[in-house]
Amino acid sequence: MRTHQLVLQWIEGQLSEGKLAVGGRLPAERTLAEQLQVSRTSVREAIRILEAMGVVRAGVGSGPEAGTVVISDPTAALGSALRLHVATQHLPVSDIVQTRVLLESWAASHARPDSPELSGAARLLEEMDADGVAVDDFLALDVRFHLALADAAGNTVVSAMMGSLRESITGYASRLTGNLPDWDATASRLRAEHHDILDAIRNDDGERAAKLVAAHIEGYYREAGVRHSS
Amino acid sequence: MRTHQLVLQWIEGQLSEGKLAVGGRLPAERTLAEQLQVSRTSVREAIRILEAMGVVRAGVGSGPEAGTVVISDPTAALGSALRLHVATQHLPVSDIVQTRVLLESWAASHARPDSPELSGAARLLEEMDADGVAVDDFLALDVRFHLALADAAGNTVVSAMMGSLRESITGYASRLTGNLPDWDATASRLRAEHHDILDAIRNDDGERAAKLVAAHIEGYYREAGVRHSS
Repeated sequence: MRTHQLVLQWIEGQLSEGKLAVGGRLPAERTLAEQLQVSRTSVREAIRILEAMGVVRAGVGSGPEAGTVVISDPTAALGSALRLHVATQHLPVSDIVQTRVLLESWAASHARPDSPELSGAARLLEEMDADGVAVDDFLALDVRFHLALADAAGNTVVSAMMGSLRESITGYASRLTGNLPDWDATASRLRAEHHDILDAIRNDDGERAAKLVAAHIEGYYREAGVRHSS
Repeated sequence: MRTHQLVLQWIEGQLSEGKLAVGGRLPAERTLAEQLQVSRTSVREAIRILEAMGVVRAGVGSGPEAGTVVISDPTAALGSALRLHVATQHLPVSDIVQTRVLLESWAASHARPDSPELSGAARLLEEMDADGVAVDDFLALDVRFHLALADAAGNTVVSAMMGSLRESITGYASRLTGNLPDWDATASRLRAEHHDILDAIRNDDGERAAKLVAAHIEGYYREAGVRHSS
């Protein structure tokens, strides 16, 4: 095992044992290096990896606010990993779309009708209904709406995976809109479909919500000319 | 943006544009540092992150086999990220189990009866049926059997996510066996269930295969005393 991996293993152990928790601070670089008898370079490499994994936020400056803080952002971590593998072409976009359909239909059918996340989702739809919303703003609100529905199902792993799938294809999704024959027509359709999905969840009709979500996602990619087998 | 992130962005761009592909080699550390006008430390930090993300394998030695090679191992990357976040207790094990049920039932219902992966799955069951298989060997074969079924469904993203969920709780799953009242009885039941699942897929009865897989996973965790809401 290489020395930066020793540092990673030690930090993971501290997290598992509850000696380090979200909001807590890692020991200073120099302290860690001395304690684990590795170079400060190895400590810094381990911290960079943890940052990329969404487990810490590296500190800046000095004083009580300095130091590397433990956070928990699994969505970012999974998103960058997926995005990199989409870039290597190992993960085809059609598989990502199919997985989105799977996770989002499940979430729609398990979302709780009285969940507070649904009020947030309704507010996002109001913003999307406003006149003159720019395409990129619409798409950003769209992502947040879908994530709010996922959160309403209450499974953190499904939420993180869904968020990471969206994040991994953000650039791609934005370019896709260029393929659409008529953005305004598409936007009107998407708006109406979003309201129908939210209504189905609020009426506790999970089965209908799941079907609507699947048709909504598949319809969008079909319109944008992406081949996809379900 | 910090300098190691510049390096990451450059490499991701090369991958997206197809200038770097799986099996190819990164430019030497010194070359990259000069080209991007960053320190060699920053280049090395970026490479460590890519290694942790399963995108490269760092080179050792010199000669034609040296250098950092592009690989594609999304399962390892997602697995380490999930494992770290399970360690921070942000992702509860019950959510992981529920997500396993979701992904594996989908995979069982979409696995192709004539897929070559199923022959591999059958061979794994033979190994598990042999007398005197040690608990840890049984568990390792068990993971490979489930992954072979997922691969038979032909969605690389679902396979990677499933593999990463399993990897994130390997240590946990191994400790769980200590909770089982009677390992031999459990092992016999698991063996029989595995054969039933494989038979259902081979008979092209995806619906039955999906139900059996869900009952199989939920039954195991219930027996081991894990609370889980579905």
